[in-house]
Amino acid sequence: MKGNLDTFFKPKSIAVVGASKNPTKIGHAALKNILISDYECKIYPINPHEKEILGLRCYTKVAEVPGSIDVVLISVPAKLVPQILSECVKKQVKYVIIISSGFSEIGDHSLENELRQIINNTHIRVLGPNTMGYKNASDGLDASFVFGVPRKGNVALISQSGALGIGMIYLANNEFVGVSKIIGVGNKLDIDDDDLIDYFSTDPETKVIGLYIEGIKDGRAFMNSIKACHKPVLVVKAGRSAAGARATASHTGSMAGSDKIYSAAIKQAGGIRCRDVVELFDMAQALAGQPPAMGNRIGIITNGGGLGILLTDACEANGLQIPKLSAKTFKKIDKILPDLIKPNNPIDLVADAGFERYEAATSALLEDPNIDGVIVASVHGGYARPREFTGAILKMVRQRKLHETYKKPLLATWVGGREFEDLVWDLKAAGVPIYPSSWRTARSMHALYLEGERLKREENED
Amino acid sequence: MKGNLDTFFKPKSIAVVGASKNPTKIGHAALKNILISDYECKIYPINPHEKEILGLRCYTKVAEVPGSIDVVLISVPAKLVPQILSECVKKQVKYVIIISSGFSEIGDHSLENELRQIINNTHIRVLGPNTMGYKNASDGLDASFVFGVPRKGNVALISQSGALGIGMIYLANNEFVGVSKIIGVGNKLDIDDDDLIDYFSTDPETKVIGLYIEGIKDGRAFMNSIKACHKPVLVVKAGRSAAGARATASHTGSMAGSDKIYSAAIKQAGGIRCRDVVELFDMAQALAGQPPAMGNRIGIITNGGGLGILLTDACEANGLQIPKLSAKTFKKIDKILPDLIKPNNPIDLVADAGFERYEAATSALLEDPNIDGVIVASVHGGYARPREFTGAILKMVRQRKLHETYKKPLLATWVGGREFEDLVWDLKAAGVPIYPSSWRTARSMHALYLEGERLKREENED
Repeated sequence: MKGNLDTFFKPKSIAVVGASKNPTKIGHAALKNILISDYECKIYPINPHEKEILGLRCYTKVAEVPGSIDVVLISVPAKLVPQILSECVKKQVKYVIIISSGFSEIGDHSLENELRQIINNTHIRVLGPNTMGYKNASDGLDASFVFGVPRKGNVALISQSGALGIGMIYLANNEFVGVSKIIGVGNKLDIDDDDLIDYFSTDPETKVIGLYIEGIKDGRAFMNSIKACHKPVLVVKAGRSAAGARATASHTGSMAGSDKIYSAAIKQAGGIRCRDVVELFDMAQALAGQPPAMGNRIGIITNGGGLGILLTDACEANGLQIPKLSAKTFKKIDKILPDLIKPNNPIDLVADAGFERYEAATSALLEDPNIDGVIVASVHGGYARPREFTGAILKMVRQRKLHETYKKPLLATWVGGREFEDLVWDLKAAGVPIYPSSWRTARSMHALYLEGERLKREENED
Repeated sequence: MKGNLDTFFKPKSIAVVGASKNPTKIGHAALKNILISDYECKIYPINPHEKEILGLRCYTKVAEVPGSIDVVLISVPAKLVPQILSECVKKQVKYVIIISSGFSEIGDHSLENELRQIINNTHIRVLGPNTMGYKNASDGLDASFVFGVPRKGNVALISQSGALGIGMIYLANNEFVGVSKIIGVGNKLDIDDDDLIDYFSTDPETKVIGLYIEGIKDGRAFMNSIKACHKPVLVVKAGRSAAGARATASHTGSMAGSDKIYSAAIKQAGGIRCRDVVELFDMAQALAGQPPAMGNRIGIITNGGGLGILLTDACEANGLQIPKLSAKTFKKIDKILPDLIKPNNPIDLVADAGFERYEAATSALLEDPNIDGVIVASVHGGYARPREFTGAILKMVRQRKLHETYKKPLLATWVGGREFEDLVWDLKAAGVPIYPSSWRTARSMHALYLEGERLKREENED
């Protein structure tokens, strides 16, 4: 049964079955995460052997809780889960998150089928089993058992792998990617990727959706959700190779299916397939912070000819064009270059390029109707001035040239060491993705181009 | 004329023509770099208008210098270079480094031909024009005009692009890649990539050779040098795409040639083509710090099933195999895993894996004759213990298991944030490359496998 997941992510009351005083227990960690959330709701620890946990009154069972419960987290041994789930159905709980593992992922399909029978023909919805839960960074609620606080932002993350999902939180923080919600789907007994894509499609806090997937249960529903989604959907689908598929089967019990069919289907539906989680975050940064590219004609600005060539190669390998400069743009940039140096695309501003050359060249490309996106690069060579490079880009951001005046994306690339690295953060913080590799920059521009194409299709369909 | 470049890299005397008191001049920077080198030699500033520069007696011209000169650096306007070069020939200077630009790279082929005429039928050898010079980190001599001190190590770097060459120094330091020599070849009037590959092939300070190339002048000589080289040769060849080739032509005046032919020829010669400088450093780290893989059968160890699958996919896409575990290895690892969890390849040690599980699994794979290389991965999930992960790997290094006992390579992968990043340095410092992406890890293992194949061919030829 489909339905809006608003109450799931913003419950008025949560119970934790298996809540514990023992800090090494998952039921303790989950309760503590809810308690330290920046979120107001009723919290009910449930454990027949305790009277009080972490300062809260403890209940013996779900039925004993006064009033209704929106969300129940279950963290008890697998064999006890059916009984608890039945109690939740009786209590008319709306959502259940089964953290417990020991179901289909270790080959026990009959125990998982038992859960399926219990919720059949009810209104209850279940996340998991074998899930970490979720962290709703938009509203400040942590309904997971793992530590770590994601930076608030507009990327929704869905992970089938618990550990990788958690690693992604730290990776996201490290890469300055802000998160709206991050959720582990586990064995996908009920709430599936398609339900979540549907929800995030209209979630005002989410701009980009990223998924790590091992197996897909209902391929048609999944592809339809991507197709109907009003936002870019990035998909890491693991298990491409034969050995990878074998490993997938043993990890979550999912069948990996034919990899080529997945690729074609995801593309057909309008999703973007990423090679791995690093590429997912690269693209998510670009899509979250920059306008889409409404065409594939890219202008490249550099202070090192070699880097310009590498960027050009990487762009062309990713379906982007590096057109010759128009006469008008040529003239504008020629003015600010040293004698003997003529502007081309890629535009080599020469090693000692400072604020003025970077700023003038970037402006000229943004103004040029034959250019759909701009890549600005800096090599920390002998005469390079990285602070002036980042300064020129920040000026574009502060004058709202990227988003409001020209509505064109700008990505940055750098080659250098620690001194430069500190400046990289100024750009990331301002929403301008900057990558240490020409390939990663080109891949992310490719994603911005695909998002432009998706928006054009969406417009035509209206 | 070919010849040993020993005196070129370890001169007893250096003159700088165009030496200057003005700190914004290249001739000032070059002289200062030589002076602050940790290297003993005679230094002669040459400038007709000065009596003394940076505390050294200044000479009016090359001819005035007493005794012989091994290396002359020239940094004067292009049109004055032929005259200076003629004086060097007359003085029987052994090597000249022409830093000055303004030759074929801006389309002035006749001026460059003039230089060629001057050195024709002489014993003098010329680097450049349009070069940054070189930094010989093995011996502590900096004969370049650019700032930055490379960390001493065993990777020789050759760059046709000056700015990118310089950026590579900082990138190398940042990535913990130690450098033996880094040299800019500029317009390659005389000293070419093949001369340098020949030299580094027997240079005891060099273990890996990396090149950034835009155009190749003598394709046959280049390929023969790679073929004859006793060390791995990594090649970034820019100008793959049509637009990239156009940009190459305008950057150094090189013809890019057919990209596919280059790829095939480099492979045929036994070199390894890298996509960009990031991949060059990834592979250089692996080749410099790890034994080669004498086969393509890889064992993968992880604490997150998802990461194991992504690594498997990336390995298979790069010609590596992830074989099933032998009965013996299975038994060894099964013993140390929690109940219900069975070892596979990739081996999932489960989220809370500590030192013991990592150490036992790594040892078991290193001991297994069916495994040629090992990848150890950690996701910074809720229960991960990154310090125990790195500890287990460091134990292998300290007990010399990788290099002496089993002679097998080990690469590491991580997914996580800042807390983990600090530990990453412990591994890099110990010579174990650790990458933040499954793709980069697999590519580097691929390079170790190719090096194993090259060594087998070399052995067969003896």
